Amino acid sequence: MAETIIKIDLDKPPYENENIHNRWHPDIPMAAMVKPGDDFIVECHDWTGGQIHNNDDASDVRDVDLTQVHFLSGPVGVEGAEPGDLLVVDILDIGTFQESQWGFNGFFSKQNGGGFLTEHFPEAQKSVWDFNGMFTKSRHIPGVEFAGLIHPGLIGCLPSKEMLEEWNKREKVLFDSDPERIPALATLPYADTAHMGKLSGEAKTRAAEEGARTVPPREHGGNCDIKDLSRGSKIYFPVYVKNGGLSVGDLHFSQGDGEITFCGAIEMAGWIHLRVELIKDGMSKYAIKNPIFKPSPMAPKYDDYLIFEGVSVDEQGKQHYLDVHVAYRQAVLNAIEYLKKFGYSGAQAYSLLGCAPVQGHISGVVDIPNACATLWLPTDIFEFDVKPNADGPKQHVKGNIDLPLAKDK
Amino acid sequence: MAETIIKIDLDKPPYENENIHNRWHPDIPMAAMVKPGDDFIVECHDWTGGQIHNNDDASDVRDVDLTQVHFLSGPVGVEGAEPGDLLVVDILDIGTFQESQWGFNGFFSKQNGGGFLTEHFPEAQKSVWDFNGMFTKSRHIPGVEFAGLIHPGLIGCLPSKEMLEEWNKREKVLFDSDPERIPALATLPYADTAHMGKLSGEAKTRAAEEGARTVPPREHGGNCDIKDLSRGSKIYFPVYVKNGGLSVGDLHFSQGDGEITFCGAIEMAGWIHLRVELIKDGMSKYAIKNPIFKPSPMAPKYDDYLIFEGVSVDEQGKQHYLDVHVAYRQAVLNAIEYLKKFGYSGAQAYSLLGCAPVQGHISGVVDIPNACATLWLPTDIFEFDVKPNADGPKQHVKGNIDLPLAKDK
Amino acid sequence: MAETIIKIDLDKPPYENENIHNRWHPDIPMAAMVKPGDDFIVECHDWTGGQIHNNDDASDVRDVDLTQVHFLSGPVGVEGAEPGDLLVVDILDIGTFQESQWGFNGFFSKQNGGGFLTEHFPEAQKSVWDFNGMFTKSRHIPGVEFAGLIHPGLIGCLPSKEMLEEWNKREKVLFDSDPERIPALATLPYADTAHMGKLSGEAKTRAAEEGARTVPPREHGGNCDIKDLSRGSKIYFPVYVKNGGLSVGDLHFSQGDGEITFCGAIEMAGWIHLRVELIKDGMSKYAIKNPIFKPSPMAPKYDDYLIFEGVSVDEQGKQHYLDVHVAYRQAVLNAIEYLKKFGYSGAQAYSLLGCAPVQGHISGVVDIPNACATLWLPTDIFEFDVKPNADGPKQHVKGNIDLPLAKDK
Amino acid sequence: MAETIIKIDLDKPPYENENIHNRWHPDIPMAAMVKPGDDFIVECHDWTGGQIHNNDDASDVRDVDLTQVHFLSGPVGVEGAEPGDLLVVDILDIGTFQESQWGFNGFFSKQNGGGFLTEHFPEAQKSVWDFNGMFTKSRHIPGVEFAGLIHPGLIGCLPSKEMLEEWNKREKVLFDSDPERIPALATLPYADTAHMGKLSGEAKTRAAEEGARTVPPREHGGNCDIKDLSRGSKIYFPVYVKNGGLSVGDLHFSQGDGEITFCGAIEMAGWIHLRVELIKDGMSKYAIKNPIFKPSPMAPKYDDYLIFEGVSVDEQGKQHYLDVHVAYRQAVLNAIEYLKKFGYSGAQAYSLLGCAPVQGHISGVVDIPNACATLWLPTDIFEFDVKPNADGPKQHVKGNIDLPLAKDK
Repeated sequence: MAETIIKIDLDKPPYENENIHNRWHPDIPMAAMVKPGDDFIVECHDWTGGQIHNNDDASDVRDVDLTQVHFLSGPVGVEGAEPGDLLVVDILDIGTFQESQWGFNGFFSKQNGGGFLTEHFPEAQKSVWDFNGMFTKSRHIPGVEFAGLIHPGLIGCLPSKEMLEEWNKREKVLFDSDPERIPALATLPYADTAHMGKLSGEAKTRAAEEGARTVPPREHGGNCDIKDLSRGSKIYFPVYVKNGGLSVGDLHFSQGDGEITFCGAIEMAGWIHLRVELIKDGMSKYAIKNPIFKPSPMAPKYDDYLIFEGVSVDEQGKQHYLDVHVAYRQAVLNAIEYLKKFGYSGAQAYSLLGCAPVQGHISGVVDIPNACATLWLPTDIFEFDVKPNADGPKQHVKGNIDLPLAKDK
Repeated sequence: MAETIIKIDLDKPPYENENIHNRWHPDIPMAAMVKPGDDFIVECHDWTGGQIHNNDDASDVRDVDLTQVHFLSGPVGVEGAEPGDLLVVDILDIGTFQESQWGFNGFFSKQNGGGFLTEHFPEAQKSVWDFNGMFTKSRHIPGVEFAGLIHPGLIGCLPSKEMLEEWNKREKVLFDSDPERIPALATLPYADTAHMGKLSGEAKTRAAEEGARTVPPREHGGNCDIKDLSRGSKIYFPVYVKNGGLSVGDLHFSQGDGEITFCGAIEMAGWIHLRVELIKDGMSKYAIKNPIFKPSPMAPKYDDYLIFEGVSVDEQGKQHYLDVHVAYRQAVLNAIEYLKKFGYSGAQAYSLLGCAPVQGHISGVVDIPNACATLWLPTDIFEFDVKPNADGPKQHVKGNIDLPLAKDK
Repeated sequence: MAETIIKIDLDKPPYENENIHNRWHPDIPMAAMVKPGDDFIVECHDWTGGQIHNNDDASDVRDVDLTQVHFLSGPVGVEGAEPGDLLVVDILDIGTFQESQWGFNGFFSKQNGGGFLTEHFPEAQKSVWDFNGMFTKSRHIPGVEFAGLIHPGLIGCLPSKEMLEEWNKREKVLFDSDPERIPALATLPYADTAHMGKLSGEAKTRAAEEGARTVPPREHGGNCDIKDLSRGSKIYFPVYVKNGGLSVGDLHFSQGDGEITFCGAIEMAGWIHLRVELIKDGMSKYAIKNPIFKPSPMAPKYDDYLIFEGVSVDEQGKQHYLDVHVAYRQAVLNAIEYLKKFGYSGAQAYSLLGCAPVQGHISGVVDIPNACATLWLPTDIFEFDVKPNADGPKQHVKGNIDLPLAKDK
Repeated sequence: MAETIIKIDLDKPPYENENIHNRWHPDIPMAAMVKPGDDFIVECHDWTGGQIHNNDDASDVRDVDLTQVHFLSGPVGVEGAEPGDLLVVDILDIGTFQESQWGFNGFFSKQNGGGFLTEHFPEAQKSVWDFNGMFTKSRHIPGVEFAGLIHPGLIGCLPSKEMLEEWNKREKVLFDSDPERIPALATLPYADTAHMGKLSGEAKTRAAEEGARTVPPREHGGNCDIKDLSRGSKIYFPVYVKNGGLSVGDLHFSQGDGEITFCGAIEMAGWIHLRVELIKDGMSKYAIKNPIFKPSPMAPKYDDYLIFEGVSVDEQGKQHYLDVHVAYRQAVLNAIEYLKKFGYSGAQAYSLLGCAPVQGHISGVVDIPNACATLWLPTDIFEFDVKPNADGPKQHVKGNIDLPLAKDK
């Protein structure tokens, strides 16, 4: 068995573990070193570091401290890695902890981060999912069970100093364009809750003030939340600092394209088994700016779909110009209305679309003025038939249970 | 064999065929009537009605009259269809004409419509694709051959009067927000080149002035350019007028998600074999606003992918807020740079991504401020290995041929 | 459009067409010549040459003259092909004739060929299948519709003189081991009904007496009835004579593994579009004895299966030693009994398993004394749910129609 | 986490564990009881109970005591199960032990069991496979790595007394038809090495003398070695005794159709996570004789194949009558000769075809006198290109390593 080079204790705060960090900064020391060709295991907290609990009360989702996220395991240094190389990472496996066979999904309060449909679901709600081997189901969303397309939401290498500065600069410009907006337009550096791994003292203080937040995906990958970056995939990461510095976290048992609920997928603590190799000078050889990857040879085959279309006319009938975001929101809303006809609440449908292996396709982006997006709902995850027929839908779901909701204080 | 209820003559202008129209309007008379359960064949012009030719000169793409598009076959009336019903359409088959075994792809001049990457490829170019049974290849893009995911780019029912008014109103508001913009923000009604099917006289004149252009996808479906709406799929269309009025055109031999090149997919003339059924009052039963569909049981299996990521920071380094359009553009540009390392020109790579069965996924839309989009490039369409390895890319493509380009006049 | 190098007339007997033959012999002259790289179209009779009709009377199946089959189109000569080469054949497409949108399936009388289950279904029966674009259904087997995995049952190159002698010799030995058996153990040369293409006179007479029957698959491929040799596949055929001499016929709209009903798949007349290339000395380079092939990138996705097991204990409880034939028969019988619970007659179920894209796997061949075979029934071809549940099966099929049967005379 | 209801100790002989048995007999007491709806974990020895070791010496394969196999975990009783019911088993997951990250494959000496190709490989050889997360590779077979289609080779319910008698009777008849044959035609009851679980004293002695050997698959399922009965599949087992009595073992990390090497797949110790339900009177409701199953929604996607054909003419040129066993052997031999052209030894190729997710299809069973079988070799498991081309094969495998061989004593 491969060595577990980063261990965690679910009963202790991640801040006490010096192999964890929650900001991006080139000065964070390597938590461990490996060689090209090595495979090894890294344990990971859930993205919130244990703030959300396996119960029927959504107040933890409402009150979450988002300045703490994401707790990442690493950085792992790879001997010989230099800026300009590609770090080739095989995700050999991902698993859960025996003592933690569950995950959570939720939407934040609009006052605290919101989500893709925060105008429609402005208050904090959550669903809890139990894991049964490779399958999951939720006591809050009856009638579905499916196999997890398990993956890390967040993985990538440390940025260089120059890259970090660019990130901070461009995001500040955006934030400053509407600084009072709720939710905010961007998450800026925030030293108070920064955890900088093994850094301490003045070096830590300085890095904490500069460290980029982990929320957005960026050139290095990071919080891409790509559901297909699953166990078995092979990823080619750009290297920006000596030894690379690969960090990983935010494991998901399953997620739909878009991670629309923001909190987020089926979020979980667990472990990930990786193997690393290098392509020297690979960024230039292959003109790589962002990571590229090959998907896994093994993924759940939920490939009978019912597909919903959306175009970029918003809920108020306003015409937007080739806006895929608006178009996908319409497709999602269309799917939610459809599922409500089978007895689901809107919140249940919304959460399900965030958790299940739903596909979101950019179907048309040139037919002015309407972008067209499609949401692909896998029909085999349901215990009943959700396809349309001449008789109309049967209300298979009783409607006697719903997602817990915690009202804004 | 099913009856061909709408025939065309490729040697005659579509304006001479009264079973063709190029605007949406509820007053267009039915070209033919069928009954629920019937199957029938409809012949279609390519979307430009024959303006583009099988040669090595892109001036036809440069000089195209886009006010003429799209030439649609129909409307086909279905007995008993009423507003509020769902018209269930099985696409039983799609095929080419024996005398027209080719298609075209191109990008318009920025002065005349442009395309997804018009800032990068501002002048008109085209590629011509030959069909060999179910496969296609292009003399302008060496090293690739693939099976076509053949589909109609445009299909849907006639809008009601109220819906048409809403379309015209909301698109005018957008257009008026920047009326000088090139390319324009929207295509407004334009009577001069309108073809209103069997309408004539004053009725035609009035309808031509009101008729919505066919460019954007809308609530009824229309120009969705969804590559998976292919032969074998089953679509549920909203009905807005008596008898439904189903029109179809803009056949594509193959297309990538987004139809990024705008002109467009591999565009072709051909025929489509349809079967229709009704779900009475289906819109209300299933809460349907836009069409929904089930994909075909038969599609080319190009499912070994190399996946490119993009985030919503644009080419100038500017940060956009959760803008999937920008993110997908970055993923596309990343793929183009990658393919250039194998010897392709940028134009060849761009055209290929518009034609091949490329997937575009909305991977993350909540991780502020960056949307993340992914472009899935099928690797089996290439005659050589395009995956990265330690040795770096081999320049399999010689670079001695390229897409014809017609400079702006 | 590729040239049609062999044409047929469905209204004329295949014996009148000198580009057709129904025996294998090296002396049959090439019907047409092509060059490596060429693509071309060949038209084909159904395997019986029109003996079976689109009606509800199985007497044509009962009275079929099996000494006439199979009517093949060819041989097509490829310039430069020499013994020892591999002839690489791309099946670019396969299609039906507009005037012949139907096919047939049947089981012969045990007195005249029988079938896999001839002990259970000893008398002639047939089902007729209508084609609707890429889909088919039968008026004799309600409740199913599926897309065709269209393919040639029979394709291969002419044998050399030495190979032909070996075939005739070894099959005669087998036949002679039980010459009175019904059905016969092998089909031996039979000059009376031989059609030797362009051969005439004494040369024809001699070849007709030696020509191998087309029934069995052999080293050259021939009547392999491999359902996955479908449109889009690429096949590498051994070459035994100068110019190769590729012949093809016995087109199937769809078939299950094993072609258990013998008559056989959904049999049809139609055309096939081929492209040829050569690998010089390929047999030795790759140690090729029998053809090898790559399956198509495009095939119907009926991949939700209900799987039936069978072991090599026969219907009378007798134990056989690792006999896959017996094991597969048990799996087939198990599936038939299962389908009868939904209202199908045994004959309907048997015919369906011969026609639908059923898989037959050799699951275990070493666990003495029982071979284990599995029959994979695709569940999506049914219009109702055939999976088991706690409530038991619903009899969706009324049982008021059945396959026509023609009693032995 | 589900409860582990049967535990094993890899350092102790399975004979010391009373929740293990190696014969089928209705009198074996339940090792544990569960209720319908329960899920639970069962640990399993490898099929030989630890006789084969992770080293480079095949003498353990040569000297294996096959009268001991297979060591099964169970029987697990399900409350309320009665003869005639169907026991519905969900395989929720299967995994390896942290301390045992390897498996073995081998062919027995012809003197001791042999294998599918024992005439070609008459002496004992083995290959050892290391597990790296979901992937495996072998130090004895370079150039391949693939994800495991992990499954139990053996699973089923206890037979009734009557069924047991029938098994013993029919197998004895076969054995007696050639009692001196090597390998034997069947494995008969053998008390000396029988392990009857919790049975002891006289009851054990009597049961041991009657207990059916576990080698062959039978009506109840048992040693089916169906590679697709993998984690995620749902199986419907016939119940013959009160409480069902489900036993399981012979876990495989991966296997090809046919398990041709007999020893067998990639054999391993590990654990299996199951969930059980009942369909009362299900055998009669659905006419079930042998188990049926639905395959998993999650399996490795190795679906680019090179397909080898074989017909039922044996290695000596003798014609067999519709013998799928002979035909599949020819297809396997053809694949081995092909792989040797890339540098593999025959033994390496044979072992690989037993271990990798190879498909074996019954392609034609009616075209007298030749059965046609196909072997589907997945091409993506190789680190190099194994498809044919005009240049001929490159010898990627150096040939400096081979499978250990232990000569017969």
